[in-house]
Amino acid sequence: MKHFLSTKDFTRTEIEGLLERAFAFKRGEDTSKPLDKNSIALVFFNPSLRTRASMQVGIYELGGNVVVLEPGGTSWTLEHRDGVVMDGDKTEHVAEFVRVLGRYCKAIGVRTFAAMKDWEAERLDPVLNAFAKHADVPLINLESAMHHPCQALADMMTIRERFGEKSKRVVLTWAWHPKPLPMAVSNSFALAAAQAGHTLVIAHPKGYELDDELMNDARMFAAHAGGSVEVMHDVDAAFDGAHIIYAKSWGSKNFYGAPEKDIAERAAYREKWIIDAAKMRRTDDAVFMHCLPVRRNVIVTDEVIDAANSIVIDEAENRLHAQKAVMAMLLGEN
Amino acid sequence: MKHFLSTKDFTRTEIEGLLERAFAFKRGEDTSKPLDKNSIALVFFNPSLRTRASMQVGIYELGGNVVVLEPGGTSWTLEHRDGVVMDGDKTEHVAEFVRVLGRYCKAIGVRTFAAMKDWEAERLDPVLNAFAKHADVPLINLESAMHHPCQALADMMTIRERFGEKSKRVVLTWAWHPKPLPMAVSNSFALAAAQAGHTLVIAHPKGYELDDELMNDARMFAAHAGGSVEVMHDVDAAFDGAHIIYAKSWGSKNFYGAPEKDIAERAAYREKWIIDAAKMRRTDDAVFMHCLPVRRNVIVTDEVIDAANSIVIDEAENRLHAQKAVMAMLLGEN
Amino acid sequence: MKHFLSTKDFTRTEIEGLLERAFAFKRGEDTSKPLDKNSIALVFFNPSLRTRASMQVGIYELGGNVVVLEPGGTSWTLEHRDGVVMDGDKTEHVAEFVRVLGRYCKAIGVRTFAAMKDWEAERLDPVLNAFAKHADVPLINLESAMHHPCQALADMMTIRERFGEKSKRVVLTWAWHPKPLPMAVSNSFALAAAQAGHTLVIAHPKGYELDDELMNDARMFAAHAGGSVEVMHDVDAAFDGAHIIYAKSWGSKNFYGAPEKDIAERAAYREKWIIDAAKMRRTDDAVFMHCLPVRRNVIVTDEVIDAANSIVIDEAENRLHAQKAVMAMLLGEN
Repeated sequence: MKHFLSTKDFTRTEIEGLLERAFAFKRGEDTSKPLDKNSIALVFFNPSLRTRASMQVGIYELGGNVVVLEPGGTSWTLEHRDGVVMDGDKTEHVAEFVRVLGRYCKAIGVRTFAAMKDWEAERLDPVLNAFAKHADVPLINLESAMHHPCQALADMMTIRERFGEKSKRVVLTWAWHPKPLPMAVSNSFALAAAQAGHTLVIAHPKGYELDDELMNDARMFAAHAGGSVEVMHDVDAAFDGAHIIYAKSWGSKNFYGAPEKDIAERAAYREKWIIDAAKMRRTDDAVFMHCLPVRRNVIVTDEVIDAANSIVIDEAENRLHAQKAVMAMLLGEN
Repeated sequence: MKHFLSTKDFTRTEIEGLLERAFAFKRGEDTSKPLDKNSIALVFFNPSLRTRASMQVGIYELGGNVVVLEPGGTSWTLEHRDGVVMDGDKTEHVAEFVRVLGRYCKAIGVRTFAAMKDWEAERLDPVLNAFAKHADVPLINLESAMHHPCQALADMMTIRERFGEKSKRVVLTWAWHPKPLPMAVSNSFALAAAQAGHTLVIAHPKGYELDDELMNDARMFAAHAGGSVEVMHDVDAAFDGAHIIYAKSWGSKNFYGAPEKDIAERAAYREKWIIDAAKMRRTDDAVFMHCLPVRRNVIVTDEVIDAANSIVIDEAENRLHAQKAVMAMLLGEN
Repeated sequence: MKHFLSTKDFTRTEIEGLLERAFAFKRGEDTSKPLDKNSIALVFFNPSLRTRASMQVGIYELGGNVVVLEPGGTSWTLEHRDGVVMDGDKTEHVAEFVRVLGRYCKAIGVRTFAAMKDWEAERLDPVLNAFAKHADVPLINLESAMHHPCQALADMMTIRERFGEKSKRVVLTWAWHPKPLPMAVSNSFALAAAQAGHTLVIAHPKGYELDDELMNDARMFAAHAGGSVEVMHDVDAAFDGAHIIYAKSWGSKNFYGAPEKDIAERAAYREKWIIDAAKMRRTDDAVFMHCLPVRRNVIVTDEVIDAANSIVIDEAENRLHAQKAVMAMLLGEN
């Protein structure tokens, strides 16, 4: 049994296989129903549009049935720590939640964002790992504190769709947002782009570094795949010659637990880091990508997101196809 | 591609076609599956029983799959205005939301009530129209600020079921409710009854007029269809000779943004405007209709809603059949 | 037409039939689709994991379609009392809600916990009974103020699975919980265990007696079935020789409406009544059961719930099979 928690757990060949299957689904060539008669649970600690809708549609198209649960909403609040005396506000332990779901469902998807309170704890993805520890069925990470591998797979598919197999200059750029956001999307994009052998530039203001271990992983993957990873703090220079601009805001790991300090810190970067037409003109006719939801005229101007080179809707569509490939891989042989 | 936003966008012949199809579904004669392999998104900004349940069942019976989203709940908060700098509390723009959903789903149903804060803005149905502006797939209006065409179609079906094709004396009557409600149901009922050529009486206290443009449309449709539209302020006289009593409370357009003033204004009408047995005795053995939910002994007495002539449950059932006809029309040819 | 509101409405033979069918589903021998083309409504006034997931999966596996509604959340707030002037905070009456749902769906499941405010009113299960009064289709009780028959049926199946048809020493034991909980699970377990002819011991501190009428019913059933019902207040002695330890916390009927008094009253029992290894050693190698969710190290220690004799996950799985048997019985002949 395999989980899908991060692209880093999969070889380049395995990822290539997922992309091929995803394209076969998109072209309508693959109409197999590997989930026939099976139910899949989707567990949402956080809101969702693309993930929820694309997973529901994907499971249906693969012949399966969806059960959606929202802990703390439609379902009970969940404790994930081991050995706790549960006399507080948590009603059920992940140990029971996950094992029970595994009796009803053939796989479990889970979305659990960073709380952004304690960097050292959250960088280890404690909730996701509690799910993985107790799960008797495959888990699909639908965005955890540190990873969003379904997004990253869809991103790689979207780049492949536009540019073929060639290595490109891919710029992952920070942008201002009114509050600090988790870095799962950025982490997973960086890893997957490195695994794919792209020339990856990560642009962010000083103080907004990604996790050290993750950066080491990315550099190692890039070295293996014939690509590179570079960090830049000059946003304008970062755009020079880019083929892909991938925008994402995230919070500083230095300010977990103190969002007001992050908000003060980032205030200086608002105008400077927005993705606008002037910056896009420095690129090599780059496409614009973002995982969505995106705040218009905050992260990116209307002009850029509404331009022909904006491929955010294709990128969102590819979530569907990529996730079908993941589910077919995890459950197809059953 | 066609949307279903208001019955006024459809000819009398087209509406007749929808009613015929709806009856064929109800009689069990039409068991076609025009939605086979397709997913439909249902977007609820507001609560729902009939709409949610009947759409889910209808889509299933037509062979399709449902994805339900609640912006601000299970899904992200939505901005619908163009050109806004999104640095407030809205997370995603309708422009992306609708286009992404259109990649996963073959049609989108949306329910978005009036906020009842700004009459001049809301009478133009801004959220619904933002959806329509960006949608690449058919939209189904599941009640907007100004229209509830699925309800109106089910209402016309219910009247047809009871009275055949004859023109009847149809009384749309205001009733007291503890707080001001949107007028979408009243608007759509008035339009559809006028389009069907009924003798339409709209009874309400002075100050509770429907929208001027809508009333003009209704009068124009009535003239074309050989019917009429009359407004009365004497609720007792309005009941005289009626064949159909259609009750609905709504707020005054004069008090959008000031509900407490509407509540003060309407206080005098509470006992006077309730639908009770005494008023029903003035009618020509009229049936009682209401779109539901209805507050018993506030809008209508238990005696009237529990009487044999109350057809509110049939009316609710017909939502299912009417909406199946709408979806079959919008998507059947695909 | 029959409802499934409590096991006490069914004979021992009927319950045996349900268990046989449930085992046939579990073994994969029964793959019939009695719900084909049918929709079932699930109405949740309260959160749920097992009930929601197992019902959704069960309905799918029986060939049907699920509509989930949450009154006061996704759906309107509901009034259940007859004759009320609905000018308060309730938007729709159960009389309409249930009859409308019955037009769309072939059965209705409803979960409506005790509010724990008024014992004399709630012990009569007023919301469930309002549903039953108005329902034109079979109702399935998914936990009401006083009963949780689906849980009890799964419990009997789990005991049967482990011990065969023999009568066993079954101990239903109260445990400390930070706040008073409803007694539906305890009530239904007591009734079903008595109906099955077990030697039933109910252990709880003085003041935590179950309902008098329910205890009389249980004693009557036990007498008929060749079993017995005994109440004990010494938790340690109660464990002596037990084959099954069934733990559940509940509130005192003396403190409905005054939870703070119950919390004060129970404070003395926290350490005393926890299910721990020392108590389990007094049993005849008993299995540990709990309906879940369970608070670890509050109701039961990690050591006990994680031991080989803990069968809480099997018990939860059996919800699925037992409920499929109930639905097949209620709707199979259609």
